[in-house]
Amino acid sequence: MLSEFQLIARYFKRSPRAGGPVQLGVGDDCALLQPPNGELLAVSTDTLIEGRHFFADANPYDLGHKALAVNLSDLAAMGAQPISFTLALALPSSDPNWLQPFSEGLFHLADAQGIELMGGDTTRGPLAISITVIGSVPSTQALKRSGAQAGDELWISGTLGDARLALEVLHNKRTLAPDLLRKASNRLHRPLPRVALGLALRGIANAAIDVSDGLLGDLGHLLTQSSLSATLFADDLPFGDALASQTIDTRYALALNGGDDYELCFSAPADKHQAVIDAGQRSQTQVTCIGQFSKGSGIHVQDHQGNLISAANHSFDHFTQNSTT
Amino acid sequence: MLSEFQLIARYFKRSPRAGGPVQLGVGDDCALLQPPNGELLAVSTDTLIEGRHFFADANPYDLGHKALAVNLSDLAAMGAQPISFTLALALPSSDPNWLQPFSEGLFHLADAQGIELMGGDTTRGPLAISITVIGSVPSTQALKRSGAQAGDELWISGTLGDARLALEVLHNKRTLAPDLLRKASNRLHRPLPRVALGLALRGIANAAIDVSDGLLGDLGHLLTQSSLSATLFADDLPFGDALASQTIDTRYALALNGGDDYELCFSAPADKHQAVIDAGQRSQTQVTCIGQFSKGSGIHVQDHQGNLISAANHSFDHFTQNSTT
Repeated sequence: MLSEFQLIARYFKRSPRAGGPVQLGVGDDCALLQPPNGELLAVSTDTLIEGRHFFADANPYDLGHKALAVNLSDLAAMGAQPISFTLALALPSSDPNWLQPFSEGLFHLADAQGIELMGGDTTRGPLAISITVIGSVPSTQALKRSGAQAGDELWISGTLGDARLALEVLHNKRTLAPDLLRKASNRLHRPLPRVALGLALRGIANAAIDVSDGLLGDLGHLLTQSSLSATLFADDLPFGDALASQTIDTRYALALNGGDDYELCFSAPADKHQAVIDAGQRSQTQVTCIGQFSKGSGIHVQDHQGNLISAANHSFDHFTQNSTT
Repeated sequence: MLSEFQLIARYFKRSPRAGGPVQLGVGDDCALLQPPNGELLAVSTDTLIEGRHFFADANPYDLGHKALAVNLSDLAAMGAQPISFTLALALPSSDPNWLQPFSEGLFHLADAQGIELMGGDTTRGPLAISITVIGSVPSTQALKRSGAQAGDELWISGTLGDARLALEVLHNKRTLAPDLLRKASNRLHRPLPRVALGLALRGIANAAIDVSDGLLGDLGHLLTQSSLSATLFADDLPFGDALASQTIDTRYALALNGGDDYELCFSAPADKHQAVIDAGQRSQTQVTCIGQFSKGSGIHVQDHQGNLISAANHSFDHFTQNSTT
């Protein structure tokens, strides 16, 4: 059995990049980080827990990827440039057959984003992966949830619902053709954080949130903090490829109340409509205008004929629902 | 049952201090933090897990205190000024009778240190408390483990061994008079991070580490990173009040190999001996010179007559030992 120090040395200790912001990495009491000049730090923490966010037999490469991706998604939603992260890992045992692919999934995404693991903690316990990411953003360009204005357009990146659809198939609640299940499962297990889009939206978007618990629920948080209402045009929702094969009721239900999408839901002034489209192209990310913000409160989902769509908000809550997502 | 959002709002959401470094706190995708001008950030993560670091019936106020204290101890060992922290909390249920005292223990220490909770994550799962602290330190004054020099004196703050003694009494391995057990238990459950001493040692000490897994083991890490050996004078070890009541063998064993002390073990040039004593007085922290650093490797523990003391290194490792500490 590997000791804690051997485990860290073998799988997680890498020298900080010469000239990079991390001046002292894994292996001291603290990591030391050179913060960017004149910018704010953006900090976020997210934990994945076995039995809650994934099953015991989950692919460890995917887990390494996803644990970092969901944190990067929070930085993306603030328009922040990722810098580095810490990892607190609770493991039932030090199994190389798990640690090797887990660390590969983690570092492949970290390397793709140019960020470094700067420190962490490894303990024996029920499997839990807790990551804290640090990024930076100029203070005037941070995409806070409270920044939306009445008259802003409502946008969403990428597509919605495939991750939730994959989960329901894995739970034997639905069926799906193998090629579509493969696509949908990829959305569930390897979400792509929209970091490039978040950066491209600096100076354009007024507010953003990442969609992790379902569009209606997360949009609701943004509306609460901006003290606004939104009208959402259901006909314009960008469904995932797999979800597009389902009935219209299923499409609405999973696109509106699904979860695990890790897309950016954001507001931008109507006169920046073309600038948003350009930002999407610069960041090679699909962007779709799906509604608008108004004074008042609540979310009105309607089709293009103005008929209200009933889609009760069932955003996921960790303490009032039981199913593994 | 409280929802995740209600739970966070009731127990963990406080407005950032006006004019403080946290510009946006709990409740957005990221926290936003104004980093200190011209200093490095010091970042550390530590997790406490039920069954590993504490028992299921542990006092929640103490847990809130200790989860933050062990992280602050890492900042202290870098000579860093604490700024803020994030909390990732996995909870079996949202029990107000646990959350209320837990949050009080956490915030009492946070307030005493003038730092703010800036963000976090709450999930249902086996009880685990993961905290990431952020502090700052001028780059030339960071107390890295690698900074010790041959000829430096070896110092320790406070006293050693009482926390481990309390643990062994709680495990029915030893007995102790009630008043001494109370003192020792306080060391185990409410460790005091040596932040003030760490700051006072800036520009004086060359290297530091906090003693969490036992003096010999943690000193060993410092020696490895500084490529040095140390001679440790056993007669000079500052035993805790409770430990002082035990046999000499027990005193040595628990002071050298105990754990959970959260004292600072540090090196300073011999010509700064008085400056270290002054730093201890400024920070109202006991400091004791217990040895010296030399070229070579290993730790030589001896009494004042030069007789070697046998005290094999049994520093705690989370993956090769089983007992709850």
